[in-house]
Amino acid sequence: MASESYTFYIQPWYRKSPYFEATKRHGCKSWGLYNHMLLPTLYEDPVAEYWSLLRGVTVWDVAVERCVEIAGPDAFELTNLITCRDLTTCDVWQCKYALLTTDWGGIVNDPVLLRLAEDRFWLALADSDALLYVAGVAAGRGLDVQIHEADVAPLQVQGPRSKDVIAALFGEAVADLRYYWCCEAEVDGIPTVVSRTGWTGEVGYEIYLRDTARGDDLFEKVMQAGEPHGIRVIAPSEARRIEAGIFNYGSDMRVEDTPLHVTGLERLVELDQEQEFIGKAALRRLAGTGVDRKLVGIEIGGAPMTDEGALNDFWPVHEPGGRRIGRVTAGAWSPRLEKNVGYAWVPATHLAGGTGLEVREPLGPRPATVEALPFVDPKKEIPKS
Amino acid sequence: MASESYTFYIQPWYRKSPYFEATKRHGCKSWGLYNHMLLPTLYEDPVAEYWSLLRGVTVWDVAVERCVEIAGPDAFELTNLITCRDLTTCDVWQCKYALLTTDWGGIVNDPVLLRLAEDRFWLALADSDALLYVAGVAAGRGLDVQIHEADVAPLQVQGPRSKDVIAALFGEAVADLRYYWCCEAEVDGIPTVVSRTGWTGEVGYEIYLRDTARGDDLFEKVMQAGEPHGIRVIAPSEARRIEAGIFNYGSDMRVEDTPLHVTGLERLVELDQEQEFIGKAALRRLAGTGVDRKLVGIEIGGAPMTDEGALNDFWPVHEPGGRRIGRVTAGAWSPRLEKNVGYAWVPATHLAGGTGLEVREPLGPRPATVEALPFVDPKKEIPKS
Repeated sequence: MASESYTFYIQPWYRKSPYFEATKRHGCKSWGLYNHMLLPTLYEDPVAEYWSLLRGVTVWDVAVERCVEIAGPDAFELTNLITCRDLTTCDVWQCKYALLTTDWGGIVNDPVLLRLAEDRFWLALADSDALLYVAGVAAGRGLDVQIHEADVAPLQVQGPRSKDVIAALFGEAVADLRYYWCCEAEVDGIPTVVSRTGWTGEVGYEIYLRDTARGDDLFEKVMQAGEPHGIRVIAPSEARRIEAGIFNYGSDMRVEDTPLHVTGLERLVELDQEQEFIGKAALRRLAGTGVDRKLVGIEIGGAPMTDEGALNDFWPVHEPGGRRIGRVTAGAWSPRLEKNVGYAWVPATHLAGGTGLEVREPLGPRPATVEALPFVDPKKEIPKS
Repeated sequence: MASESYTFYIQPWYRKSPYFEATKRHGCKSWGLYNHMLLPTLYEDPVAEYWSLLRGVTVWDVAVERCVEIAGPDAFELTNLITCRDLTTCDVWQCKYALLTTDWGGIVNDPVLLRLAEDRFWLALADSDALLYVAGVAAGRGLDVQIHEADVAPLQVQGPRSKDVIAALFGEAVADLRYYWCCEAEVDGIPTVVSRTGWTGEVGYEIYLRDTARGDDLFEKVMQAGEPHGIRVIAPSEARRIEAGIFNYGSDMRVEDTPLHVTGLERLVELDQEQEFIGKAALRRLAGTGVDRKLVGIEIGGAPMTDEGALNDFWPVHEPGGRRIGRVTAGAWSPRLEKNVGYAWVPATHLAGGTGLEVREPLGPRPATVEALPFVDPKKEIPKS
């Protein structure tokens, strides 16, 4: 979405999604790389795409959410060991937003976990090779598991009319899935898993295609089912995910950062569980001492962060008129809030709501303030139009 | 190098090398992403860049070779455990081409390992988040180590005149380093480690910058020292690395493949060592049964694989006029051999030198044959001009 663009020659090892041809056909104009795969990043205009997501229904190619499958006799032990979530409370066909942690508490990845059987899990990954972490822990412990990247390609169907589209494709029972649950589903012989999850804070679903030879078929079936509802193909919406207080691994936080460093992730560190997990001791210590820096929500003044104003680097954060104290990791113009919203790393001395900051982008300084997350509370929804 | 290019909007999380401004100043025209960092992929013309590398001296920004540092009491035990190389034969200041393996023998990464102290190692990574594997094994075993990404940025100085450049920068003792050894070195107060390694088969060095605030300084000092020798800033040379039988992790082989599947890597699986390593049992079994598919060298007929003929996807490999049996993973026009050289995955039934194949690229079929590696033997050098 930033205005600065470079020429990328396509290397043979840039993996293509099973929906790649479909996304080109539907007007994709720009790509990024995510988990070594091409990710659509723009069709027409981020603001127009945003309103489609808020007012209707949208479909996104997120095959880049590569799914690590963990199966076998020790699959539960391994999976429960690598996340700070307590999986004894995760039923079969339930999902969890499962932060994976190192022994220093660092975030390896923040996948959606799907429990497909007592002894079989998928981790739908953000942008890091977390399969290697899983394989490392399993080898280090000598656990009896099979680990591989499943040949599965997710699509997100998001927006207030998404339920109608899922019902038309898979029936009412699938459309009625509870939040963070999943099930097997089929349309015209195309095998999928559908989950009631997404990267928006809107009502939404993910469809995990299990026969990747049928990517084009599935994509067009979704378009057809969505046609009465004005479905639109879009890229992930930076504005909407920031409004919802959702993070982008690799940009907002990395393996150097723990969940206790990120506003809103603290509640996912389940230290009171009886189960051991990797990083528990370090996170317990850190919970005692407190963190020295934190990722917080910020409002950024100045011109809308679209086009020339888009964030294309980690802009430095300063005290107003003073020393450098942090960096911006995300920022976008929220069309309905009519302001720029984003995230920044700041010292623990600068966490209070309303704290004044100064963001120094290449075009000059912008005032900024620390804000509570999420920017849009789903229970106190701001009118959409 | 492929002719097909897409628009990539620069996302804030695309990491920039400490040499980024220098490479722009020296004419870089195109980038790729590698270890989440922008990698220069083209300055002027791959053929002109190739001849500079063979006839003179070249410098490349390879800060994307992110260095994982493993230190602490159990650093040797951990590092020796994750590679099929026997590190009891690796002295301090020695380097090894160290394949990292999973417990099924799969290749996690193929870094150059630098031993900086008895209990301190760097792994200069190819394109995968192998830090996560190292952290996983350490956590799984409960080893006492510190693991982090060192703030270090490598440059490659490669070509027959590279020795003169290194001597001018760091003195004769550094220039006289033996193959796969390294040492500390300094120029005008800029701290580095220099190794006698590279991605070419030519005489060459890598300079690991340790104070990344001084990227621009170091780059210009290299240019200045190279000026009498006609130094040229280039991107990694696909043609030269293929000639030398060097592989590109992520493209030629991945975690699904073991070193026994890749022509030329078999000798690096040191099964006879007394030390245990992760994957030893699986690789011993596989050595007994043999592999069912292999990555081999191929000569590819038809037009030079430059510009429109460049490889921009894994072209399918068929039996001549027949069924699909594999895929091409790399290919480039070798200006001195005056033919296209590359690699392909083929079944174990198709390994003999001279075996006929057919490569089906989008523009039509090309004949191909299996060839021995390397294409250019450094001991029987083909005249360079």
